Amino acid sequence: MSERIVYVNGEFVNENDAKISIFDRGFLFADAVYEVTAIIDGKIIEWEGHVKRLERSLNELEMVMSINPDELLSIHRKLIAKNNLSEGLVYLQISRGVADRDFEYPEKNVQQTIVLFTQVKSLAESNIAKNGIKVISVPDIRWNRRDIKTVQLLPPSMCKMMAKKAGKDDAWMVENGFVTEGTSNNAYIISKDNVLVTRNLSNDILAGVTRNSILRYAKETEIKIEERPFTIDEAINASEAFVSSATTFIGPVVEINNHMIGNGKPGEQSLKLRKIYIEESLKRSL
Amino acid sequence: MSERIVYVNGEFVNENDAKISIFDRGFLFADAVYEVTAIIDGKIIEWEGHVKRLERSLNELEMVMSINPDELLSIHRKLIAKNNLSEGLVYLQISRGVADRDFEYPEKNVQQTIVLFTQVKSLAESNIAKNGIKVISVPDIRWNRRDIKTVQLLPPSMCKMMAKKAGKDDAWMVENGFVTEGTSNNAYIISKDNVLVTRNLSNDILAGVTRNSILRYAKETEIKIEERPFTIDEAINASEAFVSSATTFIGPVVEINNHMIGNGKPGEQSLKLRKIYIEESLKRSL
Repeated sequence: MSERIVYVNGEFVNENDAKISIFDRGFLFADAVYEVTAIIDGKIIEWEGHVKRLERSLNELEMVMSINPDELLSIHRKLIAKNNLSEGLVYLQISRGVADRDFEYPEKNVQQTIVLFTQVKSLAESNIAKNGIKVISVPDIRWNRRDIKTVQLLPPSMCKMMAKKAGKDDAWMVENGFVTEGTSNNAYIISKDNVLVTRNLSNDILAGVTRNSILRYAKETEIKIEERPFTIDEAINASEAFVSSATTFIGPVVEINNHMIGNGKPGEQSLKLRKIYIEESLKRSL
Repeated sequence: MSERIVYVNGEFVNENDAKISIFDRGFLFADAVYEVTAIIDGKIIEWEGHVKRLERSLNELEMVMSINPDELLSIHRKLIAKNNLSEGLVYLQISRGVADRDFEYPEKNVQQTIVLFTQVKSLAESNIAKNGIKVISVPDIRWNRRDIKTVQLLPPSMCKMMAKKAGKDDAWMVENGFVTEGTSNNAYIISKDNVLVTRNLSNDILAGVTRNSILRYAKETEIKIEERPFTIDEAINASEAFVSSATTFIGPVVEINNHMIGNGKPGEQSLKLRKIYIEESLKRSL
């Protein structure tokens, strides 16, 4: 892979020169938030949704949006151009900045650390869409404010590794008997009587930007929608299951805890929703 | 403050030149563990306890101790000398290393990032010991593996800020009705019938190195010890309360949720235990 040009605090630099201070609170305290935005044909998918959530995450942590959204959009576009990125993603992270280590937040005037980089990834035509993914259920051991998109990603990373060790693709996290989310995606089932079920928004899950659009598009189809917690048993007995994320869009789930979902192939309605989602999102891409 | 010499991956550098890659998993995933070791008279307090816990934290996250404990001790000593540190602490952080962003762990041969720096702090004669601290109770919103000393410190940092906003010094975190810990310390009460109560070890709290020694020393006094969860009500009705950490040693708690503990001054037995702890630890310092 050729070396990327990445963005660090106002400068575009070679990825090998992209450094931050060891005193960055993102490194010492996981005191940072992030967004991942999909790129197709060099265009940015769901820009408004990601910027809006970024600002909310910052505000929930008593940080302000220190960079203008238009400037942020411009940086995204420059990164896409400099890296000739046709399809993949732009990763953005903002930390509270650099300060001597202290559990107390530093003064408000400390400059936030802003980092962006690209990754090449097949999105529109992915193996996940073609073959579906197999998941296992694991206990959800994360903190209680999963609505804030912080970099406290060690727990889902641990869960992902548990899935890999079990020979599967991903894990659905379960709390008090109900599915919360996948390790980096929202979880859905379509019941045998054609009801799309996904967990209602709360502090328990991230308000997926993709989730929001999917539910909007699904409302325009014949499918019924229920936003409520569901169990693994209910999922195993569903006719379809899928996950959604900014870069997966919709990823069909074909197996849960060794139980085949439907006929073991990506569900028809999941793929139909996926198609609608990509078409509509591309229309609105920037 | 004069500029510190810090340690980053084999080199001693000026703190302003101490950088890590933006792709460090400590920064992107909070995939890192740490230790804080107290220094008095230029000597290291509780070395064995910290090294042992460090290795345990790494192992729980499927990392190995990639640096020899003797070498780590040598780096501590060099940092103390280079910074003329008489009293304060050495902070040590080890992350899984640098890799392109992926929830899956990178290959085992990726080099861990090892960072150490010093902080000057009054430990033996502290205002905390003199005046005690006032705490409020807050919900414990952390993840479920608090026995692993990871850098996922945003939640306790948030709780510390809640205490500061309430005009107090620290917060005791409460889960299912029982105190877990302070934001960066273990919590204790001494009941009116002279029983020292502190929460038993489990995944719910960190196994404090200082806690371990305090309980050992306390056994040699006339005090009875119960390791079990306790409530805020029980704490408010206790005759003394205190916290322990590597750099606080024992910090008397004189107020909980606006209720004065005892006579509102640091408790006698707390201070006695503090004195024993410091004397014994200094004897064993390296």
